[in-house]
Amino acid sequence: MNGQFPSTLLEKAVNEFAKLPGVGKKTAMRLVLHLLRQDEETVEAFGNSVIRLKHEVKYCRKCHNISDTEVCHICSNPQRDASVVCVVENIRDVMAVEATQQYRGLYHVLGGVISPMDGIGPGDLQIDSLIKRVQDGGISEVILALSSTMEGDTTNFYIYRKLEHTGVRLSVIARGISVGDELEYADEVTLGRSIMNRTPFSGVMP
Amino acid sequence: MNGQFPSTLLEKAVNEFAKLPGVGKKTAMRLVLHLLRQDEETVEAFGNSVIRLKHEVKYCRKCHNISDTEVCHICSNPQRDASVVCVVENIRDVMAVEATQQYRGLYHVLGGVISPMDGIGPGDLQIDSLIKRVQDGGISEVILALSSTMEGDTTNFYIYRKLEHTGVRLSVIARGISVGDELEYADEVTLGRSIMNRTPFSGVMP
Repeated sequence: MNGQFPSTLLEKAVNEFAKLPGVGKKTAMRLVLHLLRQDEETVEAFGNSVIRLKHEVKYCRKCHNISDTEVCHICSNPQRDASVVCVVENIRDVMAVEATQQYRGLYHVLGGVISPMDGIGPGDLQIDSLIKRVQDGGISEVILALSSTMEGDTTNFYIYRKLEHTGVRLSVIARGISVGDELEYADEVTLGRSIMNRTPFSGVMP
Repeated sequence: MNGQFPSTLLEKAVNEFAKLPGVGKKTAMRLVLHLLRQDEETVEAFGNSVIRLKHEVKYCRKCHNISDTEVCHICSNPQRDASVVCVVENIRDVMAVEATQQYRGLYHVLGGVISPMDGIGPGDLQIDSLIKRVQDGGISEVILALSSTMEGDTTNFYIYRKLEHTGVRLSVIARGISVGDELEYADEVTLGRSIMNRTPFSGVMP
């Protein structure tokens, strides 16, 4: 933003908005002036929504997904298959898998992946609680759905070493060409993996 | 955003953010999850900054610019030329003109332009108070710096009709080719105006 702020209150609000990821000073100014044009209730509802969220939010004590209750609505749903656990990085991944409507098991939200560069070790993630969940019994399969980066692969391997003696089945989500994508534009690694991990042709339309 | 929200508090906060201009559900989700990762003080500072702004903000009773005080720091500055008033649409325009450091007069913030399509008439804007400022005396020139749209031109003309009998000098900011722009890419109207409103060549570098 160029120019001096005519009000320190305005400057403070703009600076707070500019701390958000992907929001610069100009966008922050635009957003704050938009809110300033709304009535008091609207602005209070906006400001309080995020304060209340931070104060009152709970995390499911089983899967560590964000939740309004002690145990989230997925873990407490008797119609879900409690013997399968899908390990994801964050709650956005839970929402993405839920949106597919293809998965009926439970989740385990790690809260990130092992990343020594960022100072994130296994102790900073919900890995111990995952091991404990498996050791407590009742789980037959753990699906690893972490991002396919070096950090994700490291975390997969760490979990594998911790779980290999428990006898639980460990699987990884399939990597391959996106549905609708053209082969010639796919990267070599993905195309290579999709050939290696080919599946039997069923003869029925998906 | 696809998928069901795991928490109504989260959903509420995301919906509040998604009301901001240019912010969709996915961006709202990203911003809210970012705030959720911050500590409580940071989130409270964020939420309260905009609530406090809305509650405590004042508008200068002379120029209607946003201000922390009854009379803004521009109107109360004795080093500014109180005989020249620049009429602008909003406080962002004040900040833009201030950033040029070329203007030493005062401002008058209309709060918009006359726009019958949006139901905005002269009564919804700070036009009467502008007329009164001129009638109260001490002002020799009013510079119109509204946007060059049909609505801006209408507002200019309305102000002109209201002020023509007062003897105040009325001027309009220059329209022309931007400094550094190439002629061949300029639109015809702007190029035409810049030729009509040509200025004497001074022979000194600007």
